[in-house]
Amino acid sequence: MNVFDNGIALESAGDRRLRGRTVPEWANMVGPFGGITAATMVRAIELQPDVLGLPVAVTVNYLAPIVDGAFDVDARVVRTNRSNQHWTVELAQDGDVKATATAVFGVRRDSWSDTEPAPPPAPAPEDVPLRPGFLDVTWLQNYDVRFVDGAAPVPGDGESESSTTTLWVRGNPPWPLDFASLTAVCDIFYPRVFLRRGGFVPAGTISFTVYFHADEAQLAEQGDDYLLGTARAQRFSAGHFDQSAQIWGRAGTLLATTHQMVYFKG
Amino acid sequence: MNVFDNGIALESAGDRRLRGRTVPEWANMVGPFGGITAATMVRAIELQPDVLGLPVAVTVNYLAPIVDGAFDVDARVVRTNRSNQHWTVELAQDGDVKATATAVFGVRRDSWSDTEPAPPPAPAPEDVPLRPGFLDVTWLQNYDVRFVDGAAPVPGDGESESSTTTLWVRGNPPWPLDFASLTAVCDIFYPRVFLRRGGFVPAGTISFTVYFHADEAQLAEQGDDYLLGTARAQRFSAGHFDQSAQIWGRAGTLLATTHQMVYFKG
Repeated sequence: MNVFDNGIALESAGDRRLRGRTVPEWANMVGPFGGITAATMVRAIELQPDVLGLPVAVTVNYLAPIVDGAFDVDARVVRTNRSNQHWTVELAQDGDVKATATAVFGVRRDSWSDTEPAPPPAPAPEDVPLRPGFLDVTWLQNYDVRFVDGAAPVPGDGESESSTTTLWVRGNPPWPLDFASLTAVCDIFYPRVFLRRGGFVPAGTISFTVYFHADEAQLAEQGDDYLLGTARAQRFSAGHFDQSAQIWGRAGTLLATTHQMVYFKG
Repeated sequence: MNVFDNGIALESAGDRRLRGRTVPEWANMVGPFGGITAATMVRAIELQPDVLGLPVAVTVNYLAPIVDGAFDVDARVVRTNRSNQHWTVELAQDGDVKATATAVFGVRRDSWSDTEPAPPPAPAPEDVPLRPGFLDVTWLQNYDVRFVDGAAPVPGDGESESSTTTLWVRGNPPWPLDFASLTAVCDIFYPRVFLRRGGFVPAGTISFTVYFHADEAQLAEQGDDYLLGTARAQRFSAGHFDQSAQIWGRAGTLLATTHQMVYFKG
């Protein structure tokens, strides 16, 4: 089992309840990487026997740090329509809710299609040097991140006028793309306030949304290749900021768009 | 009571339950305008006696059409932290859940602040002619909408290469801005697929997120003046598309950023 699938592994704990546990490989500064928590909640729905279709939209709210050890994930179908299904999910430790999610799964149908923005300009990932981030967090070692623009600041970099980061990313070592691992990659971008301020400030995502544009075939096409991501913030105010991002396949398929609201001090 | 506050009016129905009802003024093609439903769910939290702080992020999922008549709104505190509070909300009719929401409320603190994007260029609203939209829906009559760019298509307009709409909007007649009415305005943009395809296709929002950047003083500054909104889509595929928007005050304050995933046929 690859490091990603091991990180989101769940076993049945009766009825709809699933049981997971933190693993040291995905540790963040406090608790696990938020992307792995979100991916675990998506996987918890995918594992339900009556799931309809594929992920379309998911929002995860982070309520409190997950402590090392076991957790329960309860997924509840709120409504099943003809072509979509609405879920709520809670992740708890000893009955204490640490994260909630809502998700819409749905059947994908043929339709008119178009992608409006272009992928950000970027050299091939093989031509972009690896540059270790300044964040010495364990989970980042599971990703091969190559910054095209807006690298994580290191001492001496100073403030930046732009919050934009563009990067190539894949697993280290690589693992194949699926909806759960795409969910996690949507949270690969370090907090935009670090880039603007030129260094670390306390920050944490409070609400995280992913819109899934790709179908299973488009995910399979990516294999375990690099994905191209670009993220930026819009407004920083009163201890919060938003950041929005796109995740592209190497051949220019927009796989997901994602948004989050982040708490910060500073 | 102004038409907006009347549209989201709630009365206590015991414990945390609140009771509302649809009003004819906010009717959409099927059920009420999605923005008024989202605003009602925000208001349901604001009315709780133990609410902490102000709205920071809210996500509303639309499960099924709300039929004309009464509905119940149940708001549940999932967790209260030192400076924020996490809520889940369900809106139901006869026990049948029609919409769910998660929300983060929080205390705003002084912090470093910046707004990165500029507002879209636009002449003053008084210099932009009123142009009735092609959508003959009742609720739109509650807004004075002046399209700067990307007006709702009318027969003969044909397809557009851009999904961007920029508009001025205020109540008709005007009402003051608060968090609930800002929530509703975030859903003012007609489905982007109409603009791209040059006409109506069946479409409906399935998940709707608002990030609140303004505080109470910044909302109060707007009074009942026009707000400037701009929206665009990123990808249309397999019967769904996303759209993202910004809502600006007339003096250039970014009040909210908002995102939604929309189902469409065509």
